[in-house]
Amino acid sequence: MANPYHAPLSLMRLALQQAAQSAGVSVLKGYQEILSDLAEPILENAARFASDVLSPLNKVGDRTPSRCEPQGVVTPPGFVEAYRRFREDGWASLAAPAEYGGQGLPTLLSAAVTEMWGGANLSFAMCPELTVGALEAMRVHASAKLIGEYAPHLASGYWASAMCLTEPQAGSDLSTLRTRAEPDGEAWRLRGRKIYISWGDHDLTGNIVHFVLARTPDAPPGLKGISLFLVPKNLRAANGRLEKNDIDAVSLEHKMGIRASPTCVMVLGEHGGARGWLIGRLNDGLGCMFTMINHMRLGVGLHSVGLAERSLQLARHYARERLQGRDTAGAQRPIIEHTDVRRMLLLMKSLTQAARGLAYTAAATLDVAHLANDDDARRTAAARRVDLLTPVVKAWCSDVGVEVASLGVQVHGGMGYIDDAEISQVYRDARIGPIFEGTNYIQAQDLLGRKVIRDQGAALNELLAEIEAAAHELPADTAHPLAQLRTVLAQSCTRLRAATHTLIERSAREPDLIGATAHHFLHWLGILAGGWQLALSARRAVAQIDATAARAVVDIAAFYATHVLPRTYTHEAAVRDGVRAVAEASIADL
Amino acid sequence: MANPYHAPLSLMRLALQQAAQSAGVSVLKGYQEILSDLAEPILENAARFASDVLSPLNKVGDRTPSRCEPQGVVTPPGFVEAYRRFREDGWASLAAPAEYGGQGLPTLLSAAVTEMWGGANLSFAMCPELTVGALEAMRVHASAKLIGEYAPHLASGYWASAMCLTEPQAGSDLSTLRTRAEPDGEAWRLRGRKIYISWGDHDLTGNIVHFVLARTPDAPPGLKGISLFLVPKNLRAANGRLEKNDIDAVSLEHKMGIRASPTCVMVLGEHGGARGWLIGRLNDGLGCMFTMINHMRLGVGLHSVGLAERSLQLARHYARERLQGRDTAGAQRPIIEHTDVRRMLLLMKSLTQAARGLAYTAAATLDVAHLANDDDARRTAAARRVDLLTPVVKAWCSDVGVEVASLGVQVHGGMGYIDDAEISQVYRDARIGPIFEGTNYIQAQDLLGRKVIRDQGAALNELLAEIEAAAHELPADTAHPLAQLRTVLAQSCTRLRAATHTLIERSAREPDLIGATAHHFLHWLGILAGGWQLALSARRAVAQIDATAARAVVDIAAFYATHVLPRTYTHEAAVRDGVRAVAEASIADL
Repeated sequence: MANPYHAPLSLMRLALQQAAQSAGVSVLKGYQEILSDLAEPILENAARFASDVLSPLNKVGDRTPSRCEPQGVVTPPGFVEAYRRFREDGWASLAAPAEYGGQGLPTLLSAAVTEMWGGANLSFAMCPELTVGALEAMRVHASAKLIGEYAPHLASGYWASAMCLTEPQAGSDLSTLRTRAEPDGEAWRLRGRKIYISWGDHDLTGNIVHFVLARTPDAPPGLKGISLFLVPKNLRAANGRLEKNDIDAVSLEHKMGIRASPTCVMVLGEHGGARGWLIGRLNDGLGCMFTMINHMRLGVGLHSVGLAERSLQLARHYARERLQGRDTAGAQRPIIEHTDVRRMLLLMKSLTQAARGLAYTAAATLDVAHLANDDDARRTAAARRVDLLTPVVKAWCSDVGVEVASLGVQVHGGMGYIDDAEISQVYRDARIGPIFEGTNYIQAQDLLGRKVIRDQGAALNELLAEIEAAAHELPADTAHPLAQLRTVLAQSCTRLRAATHTLIERSAREPDLIGATAHHFLHWLGILAGGWQLALSARRAVAQIDATAARAVVDIAAFYATHVLPRTYTHEAAVRDGVRAVAEASIADL
Repeated sequence: MANPYHAPLSLMRLALQQAAQSAGVSVLKGYQEILSDLAEPILENAARFASDVLSPLNKVGDRTPSRCEPQGVVTPPGFVEAYRRFREDGWASLAAPAEYGGQGLPTLLSAAVTEMWGGANLSFAMCPELTVGALEAMRVHASAKLIGEYAPHLASGYWASAMCLTEPQAGSDLSTLRTRAEPDGEAWRLRGRKIYISWGDHDLTGNIVHFVLARTPDAPPGLKGISLFLVPKNLRAANGRLEKNDIDAVSLEHKMGIRASPTCVMVLGEHGGARGWLIGRLNDGLGCMFTMINHMRLGVGLHSVGLAERSLQLARHYARERLQGRDTAGAQRPIIEHTDVRRMLLLMKSLTQAARGLAYTAAATLDVAHLANDDDARRTAAARRVDLLTPVVKAWCSDVGVEVASLGVQVHGGMGYIDDAEISQVYRDARIGPIFEGTNYIQAQDLLGRKVIRDQGAALNELLAEIEAAAHELPADTAHPLAQLRTVLAQSCTRLRAATHTLIERSAREPDLIGATAHHFLHWLGILAGGWQLALSARRAVAQIDATAARAVVDIAAFYATHVLPRTYTHEAAVRDGVRAVAEASIADL
């Protein structure tokens, strides 16, 4: 392949250091040492694996999607071998807890690696991400027995995992779930039909451990009667060998993108019931599942950053090669010299780096929330921050992924519309981000309703104070390229604080308030927090590295201040004035 | 098909009447009568043809793209028969000049019909649109002899046309064109290679009349040495029969969307040279071609409105059928009752109707520019307005098409990502709009550089005065749902006038000014002019139709005022402050 994915290592390093600092990892014993000693070789090896193994398979997977055969799902040519190497090289166990045999590396470090997998080959990347999420759910909620039987196989990457939530009638609203689990000795028998199950079946691993939401016979109706079950594809028989359980992929969806990733219709219990084991407490399935879902939401954000980065790479490469127009001396110019193409590339790059900073910061903060055992206040504050940032990372970064991919197509002109151009695949692949693992509106509602209004804006105001502090450390001299960022960032904090105050006040009496404004609120915060990240980078770059290297960082921060941050004005106006028009519109007239 | 395309006839009627009025067609003798007598049966019959014939073939064409066979390009199953009916029912001749045997109907009326074809089946719609554009170019530039030989066949729809501009090295910049034309008696022999030729070959018609840009032996270099040639696929031999000319489609592109539309690589002169005839004057090829290209640009805008409308239909249909969540009484609710889904549908509908109004207004104004023969001042003013609006209609409407299609995918959730859902095709099809017939930046540059700065903002200021007048006719009472529209619209006119004044002043000394701001300038004007259209509709609806029917129109105008018009703040900030960050960014650092 002419132009495989290349991990942007220097930007990643900058973002890692900055995220570590801004999340306050210095309280974690040994953490900074792990980062210093291990980050470099891991990033370099991962970058090589992404370029050499995963990226060349990306188009193969798009052209030869996974298919459903009588013996099970068959992945595209090369995927089995690539996964074997992935596992052998230790990538599957990178983020898995050490107590299960994994390497137990910080979430922050695995975040950068996760971004690489997503940028090189999103379809492939989704599979190991599910397994890491499953291990996290097991760690928190599963019994020692289940952990003993399953976690080591998952941590080594010999087995994989999948999340079985959606049913035909139950998508964003899981309360109507119908899959049943009936007691069967110390285990359960499950019957039902699940759809949209990513990597629900495949040939990469010897077993697949499904996490299935189901109802037990006497469960209360609605969301409070859902339990979580572990249902392996293959059961350990008395003789120690694996035997097929009663769960099967019966068909695959044909999709716009991520075509190598098998999206399965799963049937449980066609032959008497799939054997399963309860995870966590009865009727607490959603709570248990959310540990895995929250992990996946960060994963979507990180993968989306990877896709944005890949779009930038493809567009930049094309813009440097493609000659159109002439300079004043009559020589043909690469289109990267055309001002509007530069504008598009700057927009792509600034959005990507802003989203990267935000996603890494969420990951570093998650490490503090998990590991700051001797500092309760800090751990609690970190957990609150992660809760606040998770929906923003999932929704804003995935919307950025779509936008940047679309800009990438545009830079390519007609070539971007042709299947041969990888950017056309990235554009299709990126579109899943705003949909799965909870649609972006589900994220926005979660953010505004549960993470902001419920605590009266406390967690948000903590964040805004940090953003303001970062803004005030930028140069105030209006001739400096960063002065505009300082002003707009600080103003937007003040305005968002005021708007939030009003929203909290109005929320009690305006039933459509969250529905009409949550989208705009989330984007406002996303853009603002992205600007915060670029402000931190720019300050760091100016202070620590030489002027030439700093310049690129300052350039994109200055660009973001004048081309992206002003989008917050639009969202502000809609948050302030836009409820009535939505609330009063007649559905019949739509 | 469960849910075929349905032309939104009442919204179209409203937009037609409004466009006619605002373009001032009352000066055209007989025009209003034609509209009154013919509009209704034509719209109803076209709507039926779009629903019954074109819409059911849309997915067929996506799944079974056109293919290149030794005997030529073969279109998807059903396309030949559909085109035969299209021609027999008189749709091919609708907009063709009466002197060539066409029906010579107003551009405004054919605009509504063009929107329907695009909404029902974009791939199919592109073919007849090319022929209408070719006839217009012939009418203005071709010799009586060529017109006599070719125009009647095109006007009847028995023959089709194609535009051969792009070459591998010459896309947005046609100055590097290499196709050669050498004199051969009263005709020419052409040799060269053209790419991205939409409908360059197919089996729908007995002949295809190509409009080919090429260089003659002694032509000056660059754009001033390009001539336009008519090159038929088949030549009329001495015995009156058609014989193959030396021009062939040698391969088709495999594309993200519009898969039924054959995008051809054309080779001319592999066997001695393709016979061609000069259109217009030597070395004036670009000027001649622009008559056709400008027609196609309006066509892209209209087709994009059709795609936006189709996305709205699909999303609304899905949102009414899909049940998720419960109301307070515990009954399951269609997702259209969820506030954020309503927000997305209102956004889709308001953008679509705003874009429709703008595109129809450009079409009606074109009629005035063509037909107001006894009023020179009015004709000139209309031509100036068409010149100003054409790039906005092409670029803004096509960006709206992409945005609305993406919202349509989002309303569908996971289902929107599945090939079975037509919205996933619309999303892919819509993405070509911002690319072809001049990328959207080419439009923006044309708008700001040639249509605004060159005349010192004169044409723009005329438009802004009309928009302000329309704003001031809206209710001023702040309790009225339209009061916000009045305020924001008027303010934005004032601000755009001021910003334009500054841009004109700065343009002489800031070489990157147009490149860095043109995108934002075009979007600002597009959003503002779209708001103007909704303001006119709302006022018209309130004055003329009953309160219930008016309500839907007022609803979307009020929504647009608070959720869309505030986007102009973003563009304003970028136009004002955003040049330096683009101009100073280092290409090496990108």
